[in-house]
Amino acid sequence: MYFVFVLGPAGSGKSYLTYSLANWLIERRMEVGIVNLDPAVSWLPYAPDVDIRDYITVDEVIRKYNLGPNGALIAAIDLSINFVENLRNEVDELKANYVIVDTPGQMELFAFRSAGPAIMSSLALSDKSVALFLIESTILTKPSTFLSLIMLALAASIAHKLPQIITITKTDLLPKERHDEVIRWIEDPMEIFKDIRREDAVFVTQYSDVITAFEDIMARLSIGGFVATSSITGQGMDELYALIQQVLIGGEDFYTEEPSEIL
Amino acid sequence: MYFVFVLGPAGSGKSYLTYSLANWLIERRMEVGIVNLDPAVSWLPYAPDVDIRDYITVDEVIRKYNLGPNGALIAAIDLSINFVENLRNEVDELKANYVIVDTPGQMELFAFRSAGPAIMSSLALSDKSVALFLIESTILTKPSTFLSLIMLALAASIAHKLPQIITITKTDLLPKERHDEVIRWIEDPMEIFKDIRREDAVFVTQYSDVITAFEDIMARLSIGGFVATSSITGQGMDELYALIQQVLIGGEDFYTEEPSEIL
Repeated sequence: MYFVFVLGPAGSGKSYLTYSLANWLIERRMEVGIVNLDPAVSWLPYAPDVDIRDYITVDEVIRKYNLGPNGALIAAIDLSINFVENLRNEVDELKANYVIVDTPGQMELFAFRSAGPAIMSSLALSDKSVALFLIESTILTKPSTFLSLIMLALAASIAHKLPQIITITKTDLLPKERHDEVIRWIEDPMEIFKDIRREDAVFVTQYSDVITAFEDIMARLSIGGFVATSSITGQGMDELYALIQQVLIGGEDFYTEEPSEIL
Repeated sequence: MYFVFVLGPAGSGKSYLTYSLANWLIERRMEVGIVNLDPAVSWLPYAPDVDIRDYITVDEVIRKYNLGPNGALIAAIDLSINFVENLRNEVDELKANYVIVDTPGQMELFAFRSAGPAIMSSLALSDKSVALFLIESTILTKPSTFLSLIMLALAASIAHKLPQIITITKTDLLPKERHDEVIRWIEDPMEIFKDIRREDAVFVTQYSDVITAFEDIMARLSIGGFVATSSITGQGMDELYALIQQVLIGGEDFYTEEPSEIL
């Protein structure tokens, strides 16, 4: 049983990617379980097999602790840790090849607080896991924005400590020229730094040490990889799957051997 | 006129720090203007002098564009850019020494999308500006959590391109032992790396390259500094002010000269 955790800022397309990746796997005759960890979500594009809302919801927390909506959301996510054992027991019953875990809409209340990484490790236990960090392609208007989001992804990975694949979503919404630029960046992330040096001379002067150090990190870093996807057209789902396989079992020879070997 | 932008994840205490920093400055006979940039907030601990909600609110966007609450929040923040000129005109009329700018509750919808940095630079124009990046002290349970949040702060600074002071908030909520540890970390951030090496051997092995590269960044980086504050007890407000002065005018000789020189 493999765990795929779907992380990313609000609006990055976590729930849709969960849905489309699950469908992609199911179409290839794999058993898939979907876990929803968002105690506040009112609608999801998929029917979760395991759902934190069966144990705790924001509305309950608002009533029980007399908190405002923001405080209740933080409390509900923090309190979710108390139900992870139940979630895990439910997951075990699914006998799935892949368990895809959709995380709370507001990433900053999950990935950057102690509860999020603790929930992830208590849910996956010793099963092999990978995180997908989603970045919405439509906001990648400048190379420095992309660098900032890659750092955000790195920051999350230092907290959850899993190998991570940076997944650029919603590519169907990009005009051709922007699409080509994003593809160029993810095929060779060092191109981002070249473009940053062209973007803004003052910025480059002020941040030259940081940019150099990040070039160094990027060159050395074993990020699981970059992939561009669309949950609408299905673009990139096969590459995403190949990267997931590479991280989890170190090979790209995918989908024929699994139903027998993984479980 | 100096601009102080208050950034940080949901729940990090942005609005309370805005309030207590404004009061601290007012008590020292400075003119202070407060700008609220959160189109969704229902209650604030201060009365904003300039308020984005006078121009756009999430409720209006929900009605006008028929969006759900999450989509409407993203749209309202993105659309705020259209009203920045009005906000700036209002700010100019305040004739303030300091303009403190409180930002939307969900940082990931502001600092990591193009709208946030664009709003910040269009509001401050060529006036000297500094960003405070708030981290809630109560979630700093492990050194790797702190490192992850420092990276989050760095990621934000690469997007907004301002000098930034990392402000550890809510220190009044920390037990003595944890308080001392946090103070040790912020007095010499390289201590974080020493502690990380003790925290988790597997983590250190997996991330050794990244940790080394980050040590390098931290050692070279001209972060505006670290300060620990409490908006309840007032702890650290004088140090925060000294750091702000250091970033803005390069000196610590604070508060006597300003009312004449700044305006």
